[in-house]
Amino acid sequence: MHIDTRMEVASRIAREAGAILRDFFRTMESYELKGRANIVSEADKAAEDFLVQEIRRLFPQDGVIAEETEEQDWGQSGFVWVVDPLDGTTNFVHSHPHFAVSIGLLKDKEPIMGVVYAPVYDEMFCGVRDKGAYCNGVLMSVSKAALLRSSLIASGFPYAREEQILAPILERVQRILLNAHGFRRAGSAALDLCYVAAGRLDAYWEEDVRAWDMAAGLVLVEEAGGRCSSIEGGVCDIFQGKIVASNSKIHEELISVLFR
Amino acid sequence: MHIDTRMEVASRIAREAGAILRDFFRTMESYELKGRANIVSEADKAAEDFLVQEIRRLFPQDGVIAEETEEQDWGQSGFVWVVDPLDGTTNFVHSHPHFAVSIGLLKDKEPIMGVVYAPVYDEMFCGVRDKGAYCNGVLMSVSKAALLRSSLIASGFPYAREEQILAPILERVQRILLNAHGFRRAGSAALDLCYVAAGRLDAYWEEDVRAWDMAAGLVLVEEAGGRCSSIEGGVCDIFQGKIVASNSKIHEELISVLFR
Repeated sequence: MHIDTRMEVASRIAREAGAILRDFFRTMESYELKGRANIVSEADKAAEDFLVQEIRRLFPQDGVIAEETEEQDWGQSGFVWVVDPLDGTTNFVHSHPHFAVSIGLLKDKEPIMGVVYAPVYDEMFCGVRDKGAYCNGVLMSVSKAALLRSSLIASGFPYAREEQILAPILERVQRILLNAHGFRRAGSAALDLCYVAAGRLDAYWEEDVRAWDMAAGLVLVEEAGGRCSSIEGGVCDIFQGKIVASNSKIHEELISVLFR
Repeated sequence: MHIDTRMEVASRIAREAGAILRDFFRTMESYELKGRANIVSEADKAAEDFLVQEIRRLFPQDGVIAEETEEQDWGQSGFVWVVDPLDGTTNFVHSHPHFAVSIGLLKDKEPIMGVVYAPVYDEMFCGVRDKGAYCNGVLMSVSKAALLRSSLIASGFPYAREEQILAPILERVQRILLNAHGFRRAGSAALDLCYVAAGRLDAYWEEDVRAWDMAAGLVLVEEAGGRCSSIEGGVCDIFQGKIVASNSKIHEELISVLFR
């Protein structure tokens, strides 16, 4: 079974997991905050259980790395699924609609397919290496911005509450505010990457992000004509926790403003 | 003609102005950045011309204050419309769907009605003083968060590119990251206020915001059970450029963390 079969399965199960999340999301309003934290855990677990069961049932030789699963299973087929059932957990718990299911697929450890589904917006982003990336069936391409000063840049912040961790990140946000058109912080790494692919953002960087947050989005950005790299501009290893993703044209300028 | 008539008109014309924006927005993709700036101006002007013409035709005695209009017309009826045809311009120019039409109504200089319409999301937020606030017909209420540390807080940044203006604002962002559950920067003041009203954000503050950005949203927040104030906690004057809007429960704690 080749990649097209896996893509069909990925988009179907992303949509079904999204429906699971949406059902939990809509019950959220009637709960107090403490109850909400439990609903999020339940929603996260229900969506992940569904995704992992479907993947194991259909592709028993494939590996699975998922947010809630403690061990990484690399499988025997060379294919490894990298799954985040709920990216944007903080938004979800606050009834904020900006969250998504993210499903990436690695072949021989390289990301080759990505599916991200935002259930409240009903937007399905998907792409396969060398076959383009799509949003609800429409081919995506990255923005045409050639200069940082005309670019809209997004980032995420770590959950850390220590001033010494936050200060250098805010210093970089200030460099963006001084040098770019605008700064956005939306709360979902997977959707930030989709928005770069769709040309809604010109770039996104984050310095504390997990493989399941970016495995899918990385393929989408690259297939839409963009570039993903480490913060030094080298190859982006999704297991190293840092990423710079852009329309490619502003990539060098962005890295030089942020990190040099 | 009383307030209900004006509400019916406001929601109809907000929807129609939103359709104008959406048409321009969808042509955006085929343009380079330079052309995009022109489309935004055209879209902004077309939506504002439509709104102002409809208001003047139906309520010739009312005043109108609109973003693109240079003079403020306070009219003779005691009613003044405060109109932003396109809030979230930077998002719009970047093909980012997070933007809205905002229509507020003042009676004897007090905001008494607000309508905000997000055309891509097709979400209509509206409210009238003492009659509640609604999102697509469903009654809204602010979140139940009682502590800043469990709250999601949004803000906006000024367009200023000077370090001495940005530094104190980023210092406040750091206080939020240290003390709250999360920080969001979405790029539309009107929608940030709607999201506070809808309980998707627990609070929002901004220190460089215009009357037309907040006239509508202020009514929505208050009608959904929230509170709007100056940064000192006094009455919010929409012509003074600063606002703190919250679910009311975290209001004092937020002000004290941000400004004291």
